[in-house]
Amino acid sequence: MTIMRLSKQEIRDALKNGKITVCVVGLGRVGLPTAVAFAKAGAQVIGADINKNVVELIKSGGCHLRDEAGLEELVENVVKNGRLRATVNISDAVREADVLVVCVPTPVDENKVPDYSDVKVACHDISKTLKKGCLVIIESTVGPGTVEDLVVPSLEKGTGMKAGTDFGVASCPERADPGKMLQHLNVVPRIVGGINEKSTAVAAELYETALGTKVVRVSSPKTANAVKLTENLFRDVNIALANEFAILYEKLGIDVIEVINACATKYNFIPHYPGPGVGGPCLPQNPYYLIVEGVKVGNIPYLVRFAREINDRMPEHVVMLVTEALNDVGKTVRGSKIAILGVAYKPNVHDVQLTPVKKIYEHLKKMGASVTIYDPMFEGEEVFGIRSARNLSESIEKADCIVIGTAHKEFHHLDLALISQMSNMPAALVDARHVVAPSKARDHGFAFRGVGRRHTIGPK
Amino acid sequence: MTIMRLSKQEIRDALKNGKITVCVVGLGRVGLPTAVAFAKAGAQVIGADINKNVVELIKSGGCHLRDEAGLEELVENVVKNGRLRATVNISDAVREADVLVVCVPTPVDENKVPDYSDVKVACHDISKTLKKGCLVIIESTVGPGTVEDLVVPSLEKGTGMKAGTDFGVASCPERADPGKMLQHLNVVPRIVGGINEKSTAVAAELYETALGTKVVRVSSPKTANAVKLTENLFRDVNIALANEFAILYEKLGIDVIEVINACATKYNFIPHYPGPGVGGPCLPQNPYYLIVEGVKVGNIPYLVRFAREINDRMPEHVVMLVTEALNDVGKTVRGSKIAILGVAYKPNVHDVQLTPVKKIYEHLKKMGASVTIYDPMFEGEEVFGIRSARNLSESIEKADCIVIGTAHKEFHHLDLALISQMSNMPAALVDARHVVAPSKARDHGFAFRGVGRRHTIGPK
Repeated sequence: MTIMRLSKQEIRDALKNGKITVCVVGLGRVGLPTAVAFAKAGAQVIGADINKNVVELIKSGGCHLRDEAGLEELVENVVKNGRLRATVNISDAVREADVLVVCVPTPVDENKVPDYSDVKVACHDISKTLKKGCLVIIESTVGPGTVEDLVVPSLEKGTGMKAGTDFGVASCPERADPGKMLQHLNVVPRIVGGINEKSTAVAAELYETALGTKVVRVSSPKTANAVKLTENLFRDVNIALANEFAILYEKLGIDVIEVINACATKYNFIPHYPGPGVGGPCLPQNPYYLIVEGVKVGNIPYLVRFAREINDRMPEHVVMLVTEALNDVGKTVRGSKIAILGVAYKPNVHDVQLTPVKKIYEHLKKMGASVTIYDPMFEGEEVFGIRSARNLSESIEKADCIVIGTAHKEFHHLDLALISQMSNMPAALVDARHVVAPSKARDHGFAFRGVGRRHTIGPK
Repeated sequence: MTIMRLSKQEIRDALKNGKITVCVVGLGRVGLPTAVAFAKAGAQVIGADINKNVVELIKSGGCHLRDEAGLEELVENVVKNGRLRATVNISDAVREADVLVVCVPTPVDENKVPDYSDVKVACHDISKTLKKGCLVIIESTVGPGTVEDLVVPSLEKGTGMKAGTDFGVASCPERADPGKMLQHLNVVPRIVGGINEKSTAVAAELYETALGTKVVRVSSPKTANAVKLTENLFRDVNIALANEFAILYEKLGIDVIEVINACATKYNFIPHYPGPGVGGPCLPQNPYYLIVEGVKVGNIPYLVRFAREINDRMPEHVVMLVTEALNDVGKTVRGSKIAILGVAYKPNVHDVQLTPVKKIYEHLKKMGASVTIYDPMFEGEEVFGIRSARNLSESIEKADCIVIGTAHKEFHHLDLALISQMSNMPAALVDARHVVAPSKARDHGFAFRGVGRRHTIGPK
């Protein structure tokens, strides 16, 4: 079956009747839910990954992602009914496939340069056995122009075929929120941009049918990739702006959370909140995909670049707040026992990718503190090279300072009376996630600091 | 009557029964609609302004603001029924008043330093005859701390009374959108922050009762002023971000409007569009109120500062697009006839305050172009020192280049066939406001450029 020759109706029918084989390359946070979604929609899905453990786990109906509600059960179902197979042999999988969906990671290196080597390897592997008439879809986040200038030439070179004529290529950047992948896959509209009209049309039809979402058709892969980056950079820049306000308002004796919540009552304002920095697989890296393209044409997006640096520096600000709060109770960081509550990069995920809390942890360790960690998503697990606490009490026992690093739901109503009993009072409390009311912390005797919270008032 | 001693219910009753006298100082775009709103709610309102012409016009039931729908009729009504009087004698007006509402302009000077002299003069005038038990409300946009450090000392010094004890002071920054003042006054929640609880309570009750809007009570005048600045700076920074994307995407061959419209389908994105810069009474100035406070505490908000500069430089970018587009048809700016369509700083207002189009006009004139102007809100009026055209045809007759500077509703469906007939073809069309589809302009034979529009394609 050559999917590139099918009409819309034929695609719909073929999908329902199990006649379309989709190979998803990369079974991480994006690839696995996507593979499951296509399998649920009726496709024959082969998930390919270089990680043997992940492949073996999926083969047995298991799932390595623990924080995507409902995913484990779905994986078990589609593996049991034969809709989803997993393999480490990408070339074999490609040989069977009508559609290739590339969901490999695209990190940035230590110089903040995008590392597309997984995309290159995937293209190389795909090109070895790609059949005529197939469609290659890139979901991985890449800079605008990467599909045109890297993916297409690589596939053409490896196959000896002509993209657009012999096979289709389209970008359909993933747009879902980690921790909510399954919900978002079916509701957040997808952006599809192909190298020609047919590529766009076939890819759009596939996603509309398989996921049931709206598809916005754009004029090229680079446009689709620009959309992905623009929306994520919007968030990164606005969080940086909130952080800039936070630091200034601390000095002006203004509570930034009070300000932002009041702003949110205006019709054209959308609130972003300050914090200890920005982590996760997307926001800390996405700016660099665009910056590197800006460098090439002599037009660096400096606002984006500067915003990134503001966010990158926030862990240092939190360390300064810790130092100040401990100073208020006559203690130094050196020799203090500091309990960090929350290490995940955002609430309610089992994920520490590029979490800013790691920088806070390392900085405080370097300064001579004895640091414990507690995170309800990582109870007793090794994190940052140490074993995290099995429960809150184990972590805060005799602490001189409590630092809240993630706004997990468990931390929204902390029992400050209990915490002050267990802590080595007089103690400090530093809230980088505005889950504790400053007055409440002070009422319980803590020397309090919070990112963006007025601290002209000393400890009680 | 001493309003500061009244309970909530007493304030409500007194307002309805015409027992509260409100003096609005400054009858501009904020003050006049506010005066009318208080008069409609039952207050006795005295509008004070130093501009004799404005006062005389209002006395006769007229209105100097032409683009606020419904305002003229309302002014006539409340003047006729005696609810609104106007005067140039502020001290006399203050003597009668229970509530003072300061709505004077707060521009920035040529060095981008806020000029609070009108606020100072207003406070000085008010303090001469301010009665005990009155409430002074500052609606003018000022930096956080200005009410505490400038307004309060000035009033105390002039009156010999103690603020908080003898009279109340609160900030309630105006939050409505020029051109929609009347609609917004009744729906956009107000932010009220007083120097003490009583000031906040009385001011909040007044606005809730008189305007029928929700009031968010915040902890201080400086918090209220920070809210006003934060929400406007959010807009300024996001427009700068859109402009940064626009310029980069032009070079990458990506249409920024296509990108932003696609981004807008994501749940956590709010679209801002690029353009020729940012004008009006608020956005180009508001950043400096905060910057100057940042300078004082050694913490300049550089992201805000940089965003402002991006927006300030956009007129130059438009001039470059004009130069390029004319070059495509073998013409120089020098000697070309250029028609600028739209000079108002935003659509559908009779207002050129800090409009970026002025910079474009001046730059093109300096380069030797013969520039005509047409704006449906200013037909035949003098603008930028020249008489603007009475209609579109008069402006575009034999034009070598058409520049769209404002997205007035009249420009959303321009008859390009007619325009190309009247223009001196081959001609250029430069759209700074994305109201013309690039392909349509090119189909009609124009060398087209648009802010953020792909222009790797030359003229047809």
